[in-house]
Amino acid sequence: MSAGVAPFERVLIAGIGLIGSSFALALRRAGVAKQIVAFDHTPAHIDEALHLGIADEAGNDPALAAGADLVVLCVPVGACGKVAAKLAPHLSEGAIVTDVGSVKQAVIRDVAPVLPPHVHFIAGHPIAGTEHSGPAAGFAELFDGRHCILTPAEGANPEAVARLQTAWEAVGSRVTIMSAEHHDRVLAITSHLPHLIAYTIVGTATDLEEHMQQEVIKYSAGGFRDFTRIAASDPVMWRDVFLNNREAVLEMLGRLHEDLGLLARAIRIGDGATLEEKFATTRAIRRGIIAAKQA
Amino acid sequence: MSAGVAPFERVLIAGIGLIGSSFALALRRAGVAKQIVAFDHTPAHIDEALHLGIADEAGNDPALAAGADLVVLCVPVGACGKVAAKLAPHLSEGAIVTDVGSVKQAVIRDVAPVLPPHVHFIAGHPIAGTEHSGPAAGFAELFDGRHCILTPAEGANPEAVARLQTAWEAVGSRVTIMSAEHHDRVLAITSHLPHLIAYTIVGTATDLEEHMQQEVIKYSAGGFRDFTRIAASDPVMWRDVFLNNREAVLEMLGRLHEDLGLLARAIRIGDGATLEEKFATTRAIRRGIIAAKQA
Repeated sequence: MSAGVAPFERVLIAGIGLIGSSFALALRRAGVAKQIVAFDHTPAHIDEALHLGIADEAGNDPALAAGADLVVLCVPVGACGKVAAKLAPHLSEGAIVTDVGSVKQAVIRDVAPVLPPHVHFIAGHPIAGTEHSGPAAGFAELFDGRHCILTPAEGANPEAVARLQTAWEAVGSRVTIMSAEHHDRVLAITSHLPHLIAYTIVGTATDLEEHMQQEVIKYSAGGFRDFTRIAASDPVMWRDVFLNNREAVLEMLGRLHEDLGLLARAIRIGDGATLEEKFATTRAIRRGIIAAKQA
Repeated sequence: MSAGVAPFERVLIAGIGLIGSSFALALRRAGVAKQIVAFDHTPAHIDEALHLGIADEAGNDPALAAGADLVVLCVPVGACGKVAAKLAPHLSEGAIVTDVGSVKQAVIRDVAPVLPPHVHFIAGHPIAGTEHSGPAAGFAELFDGRHCILTPAEGANPEAVARLQTAWEAVGSRVTIMSAEHHDRVLAITSHLPHLIAYTIVGTATDLEEHMQQEVIKYSAGGFRDFTRIAASDPVMWRDVFLNNREAVLEMLGRLHEDLGLLARAIRIGDGATLEEKFATTRAIRRGIIAAKQA
């Protein structure tokens, strides 16, 4: 799939967790990076990145960014601005700087002002992940067939946007371009709210009497275990998502709250017709997802 | 795993959907049923049950129950009483009658009074399923390694309970015995509440503007798709679950509601420490489920 894509000379992955290491491995698989460098502040991650062959060079020196023509911020949303500021003095003329954060407006707000004018900042978000964290959790196939959203600012350099798009396509993604504001609203319902709910329901179960907790685990196949998988995602990453997409998440939560109230009322008054009708309509959405090959 | 289990002479499966057909196929695989008979009121289900080799005989005549030493009600919780009443005049002396409903107190309330005194009614619930419905959705491996809960009434015949337990073990399940009341409370949190929430959140997405709906499907890999799978479960079955386990579900929903309020507040006031702490604790539950081999 990388046919015709000119390779990047030096790709810097800043933050070598699940997404960073998967992106590095996928770039390598596609043969579109001559050199891959990992920047991380955790010594164990640096060692793992080298040991697992994820990066050719790895360390905590921001000067590693020198000479990179692609820099990918793969740290929690709340850390993007700080990491970008560290790397900024070392960035080369014409470098493409991007990120993989689940929130786009806040990242752009934090990152864009600290970068030098001679680089191209194009925010991005691959819709892919697992509940595992750290460099060892990465795998080259993570982005295969998944969507990646880019949210370039108005006036962004079109060649740089196109170049970044080819990189994501080379690692298997399907790229869509939209505004950061629209991204944050769509992701609030497709990702942020589901995670918030999953964290909540698993937390509710954790607060039950101790013997009930054991049974919750034992009988989790009844539906609960799907929530626990989501609720096992990285706590710091998700803390930052909620803090940085507050308005859209609280709006969607408000809508959910209304709908939950209607169903609770139908249960309380024994209104089976309303329940059955609501439950029947949700099957259609599932069929849409299967048809779109995102199941 | 069926070593030493004396086969049943004639097993009647009343309602040949996902669970009914899977149980029939699993009994056959284990070689513990000489004859399997399907009772269903849907002509297409009857045809499929015969065509797919799920049952040796199939039809809508309650007299099919004659001679059965095991009768399994595999219909929605709200229909168990009615189906049991139809079969009652044809039940043989000493037959074991059970069910597979996700609610136990309501089924016992509806079924026990309509059965003749010469049969053994022992309510049951295999914690297994998929989002698919109908006879063609069934498969022999559905119960492998999964839990099955039996909730015999006080004073139930111990030989009959043991015999039913061997049947569930023969199809691959691990059997636990508990009270119907306790079952309904545990399942409210492990299964009923997760389904209610999944139905709600998918419904909330369905009510978004139309162009957003398409994007919800497109970007569902961000967490939403796990909810859509749960929310694609059989609408009538789930309507009956909520109507028949109202108190426990509304209690658990009340707890969830409180917890969601706390998280929403933490998001609103920017309290990252609370969010991170809550999210970190839920990972432990996931580890418990993986350790218990129910993931």
